[in-house]
Amino acid sequence: MIKELAEIDIRPGCEEDFEAAALEARDLFLGSKGCLAFRLHRSMEQPSRYRLFVEWETIEDHMLEFRNSEAFLGWRRLCGPYFLTPPRVEHLTIIVEGRNEKSER
Amino acid sequence: MIKELAEIDIRPGCEEDFEAAALEARDLFLGSKGCLAFRLHRSMEQPSRYRLFVEWETIEDHMLEFRNSEAFLGWRRLCGPYFLTPPRVEHLTIIVEGRNEKSER
Repeated sequence: MIKELAEIDIRPGCEEDFEAAALEARDLFLGSKGCLAFRLHRSMEQPSRYRLFVEWETIEDHMLEFRNSEAFLGWRRLCGPYFLTPPRVEHLTIIVEGRNEKSER
Repeated sequence: MIKELAEIDIRPGCEEDFEAAALEARDLFLGSKGCLAFRLHRSMEQPSRYRLFVEWETIEDHMLEFRNSEAFLGWRRLCGPYFLTPPRVEHLTIIVEGRNEKSER
């Protein structure tokens, strides 16, 4: 499993519309081959900056399958109008992981 | 729950030592008040760049309790020598979340 990390700056004032569009776009990701999870986060320090994390089985599922799919066009159609700049995209692998066993989450 | 996101650039060539130190430092985080999870990721595109995600119950658990604790000093003692620049730290809240129900993860 790999994680896509997209840093997305939104035109200030469009945050609410962008979040509604991202909620609508979520199932375009989750219905795509190899997509395991979708999480959109908002920065507390820079409220027009979002971080999208998408878990994919392989990097090809993201860069070949998804990027050439109707689902990708749908995502960009829904959310693209709110982008201030093109998203900055990287891929991450997990190196060290741990969870607090006492926590209920 | 909030997530700390730290972007950490490591001195090139020190990646293996840094990863071993981070594995050792993990329990310093997980033993701290309000720490729910610890995940260190490495960028596939920029292999000396890491992203540390730490889940905290509240931002105060990170910025007041942890930052003023012996555990923080231990983390910096273990991993600080490998930092190329000071980590860039932000805090994130989750806006939209979804998981593929068909996946086994």
